[in-house]
Amino acid sequence: MQRLSRLRDLIARPASEWGADAQRHLDSLTKPTGSLGRLEELARRLVEVRGGAAPAVARPVIFTFAGDHGVVEEGVSAYPQVVTAQMVDNFLRGGAAVNVLARQAGARVVVADLGVATPLPARPGLVSRRVADGTRNIAREPAMTREEAVAAIEAGAELAETAIADGADLIGLGEMGIGNTTPASAVTAALTGAPVEEVTGRGTGIDDATWRRKVEVVRRALAINRPDRDDGIDVLARVGGFEIGGLAGVALAGAAHRVPVALDGFVATAAGLIAVAIVPAARHFLFASHRSVEPGHAAALRHLELEPYLDLGMRLGEGTGAALFIHLARAAAGIYTEMATFKSAGVDERCEA
Amino acid sequence: MQRLSRLRDLIARPASEWGADAQRHLDSLTKPTGSLGRLEELARRLVEVRGGAAPAVARPVIFTFAGDHGVVEEGVSAYPQVVTAQMVDNFLRGGAAVNVLARQAGARVVVADLGVATPLPARPGLVSRRVADGTRNIAREPAMTREEAVAAIEAGAELAETAIADGADLIGLGEMGIGNTTPASAVTAALTGAPVEEVTGRGTGIDDATWRRKVEVVRRALAINRPDRDDGIDVLARVGGFEIGGLAGVALAGAAHRVPVALDGFVATAAGLIAVAIVPAARHFLFASHRSVEPGHAAALRHLELEPYLDLGMRLGEGTGAALFIHLARAAAGIYTEMATFKSAGVDERCEA
Repeated sequence: MQRLSRLRDLIARPASEWGADAQRHLDSLTKPTGSLGRLEELARRLVEVRGGAAPAVARPVIFTFAGDHGVVEEGVSAYPQVVTAQMVDNFLRGGAAVNVLARQAGARVVVADLGVATPLPARPGLVSRRVADGTRNIAREPAMTREEAVAAIEAGAELAETAIADGADLIGLGEMGIGNTTPASAVTAALTGAPVEEVTGRGTGIDDATWRRKVEVVRRALAINRPDRDDGIDVLARVGGFEIGGLAGVALAGAAHRVPVALDGFVATAAGLIAVAIVPAARHFLFASHRSVEPGHAAALRHLELEPYLDLGMRLGEGTGAALFIHLARAAAGIYTEMATFKSAGVDERCEA
Repeated sequence: MQRLSRLRDLIARPASEWGADAQRHLDSLTKPTGSLGRLEELARRLVEVRGGAAPAVARPVIFTFAGDHGVVEEGVSAYPQVVTAQMVDNFLRGGAAVNVLARQAGARVVVADLGVATPLPARPGLVSRRVADGTRNIAREPAMTREEAVAAIEAGAELAETAIADGADLIGLGEMGIGNTTPASAVTAALTGAPVEEVTGRGTGIDDATWRRKVEVVRRALAINRPDRDDGIDVLARVGGFEIGGLAGVALAGAAHRVPVALDGFVATAAGLIAVAIVPAARHFLFASHRSVEPGHAAALRHLELEPYLDLGMRLGEGTGAALFIHLARAAAGIYTEMATFKSAGVDERCEA
């Protein structure tokens, strides 16, 4: 609990004057006022998060956390559980989508095992922060104990704090875990109050019958475990997952150290919901990189009052949306720091014809 | 006319089998089928455009063409005409938004004067392809002669063909020209048949009274000049602009040489409309990088049957949207060429739980 208590004390809403100062600077640049749209809003938010400092995205890091889910025994996924471990292997060899997109964005990927079902052999590049051999089946019992929930959060926070000490200036959340849209749906329903059918989707691509079963499983998970929506740790423990908890810890560490945190899709955003349930002011440090096809993502983003920057019909996770967002964040930072002003460029201002 | 005739003969719709082959490859990669959404569609289209070759975005070039517009004497813009020349200067010094975004995307910017009102002094980096000292006032007479229209198209095509011979593998369209959303509205109304009020917007940010005047000016331009919608060169000559014609030439050169062409905002897309009016099959080589706030952009994109990849509330032009799109095109190409397959990575395929 020690790390979590410390982070909690550090997180505070950014002063609004930073945003106003940033907007004045943006309005002095050689472009019609507001003509770069959300790129300007993004630049302004980056300045706010950094407490008025000029934004930079030089050392982005994506945390791709893996975990398994006891609930797969209910038949809620299109893929066998062993794929979680196989994909970790793929991440470590650089062949997964997030590797490709992170390389292009100049981002490092931290691949960590937060609780894959079968222990993975130690190998270079694999960070082991296993809390347990996968969660228990939430359709029958809590996913994990409260102590395990805190351990997952603190493990993620520790990895993020290390990266931040090392210079990370933008943090992306990513995940892999067969079956993990089921706990993400349960977490989202619990914390946003949205109906279960509205926040339960097709995951990796299930058919109608499996979808109906998945809705029932999420309903049962909520009915049996009765997560307390005023207690983010309780929601994580009862219906969450280890990788989700780890990412909530990453988000809290980012917020505490004023580093922008890029959510990814539905599962990573569920981690964002947990983080904000634990410390509401953490919301100000989160950025919605993209809108996932998963229907529950919309409810989660609404709850966080975030509007995504990209909408490309993606539903892969891993941190792929966060990786694409890095380009936009860097573009916003570049606009802010590299453009000429009307004055410096000798360009006439508007005349209101 | 010689270059244009040659290009016209080279442009042919890509064979559909390339797209089907590309989709089979995409489906073999380690991700649920279709889970990268529009990034997959983009990869498929890039393969189609390249005639089955693996896509690459290693040497993107953005053509930022400048031109002035006689119609500004009707008071349709918020900025004085001299800003066109001042912004060309800003482009050459690297201080404009397109410079910043192109640098980040690893793209070269070709800055060319297609017809700025006051001749610009020769200087390094400035390409001079002046057709005339700005267009004539379309509210009273045709913008240019048919010969000037062809000259603008051929000038743009020549610059693009030179860049392509030099290795350019993605081409972006960009423009600068105070008042040029007025001809863009006229071109869009003429070629799409959409009502003038629907395709006339606020440009750099005009007030209600100026907007009403602008709508009247576009109506008058169409009534007086009666552009022939079945003749793209006629539309350009009667209600277009020199930078618009130049960009239409760039688009035709890209299509002829099977190089993907990224449209930018409303004005660049009007150039795309002209290109497609001249050679309908050119459409298959165009990519809608983003959706502009300018209301006429939607009508133009609908007509071209293109769906934009980005929607960031931008309305700056210059090629800024095309520059951001380069990251997505490169991401799509990287996914296609760098990801592991299920077989190569030893990852189990779906089991339909």
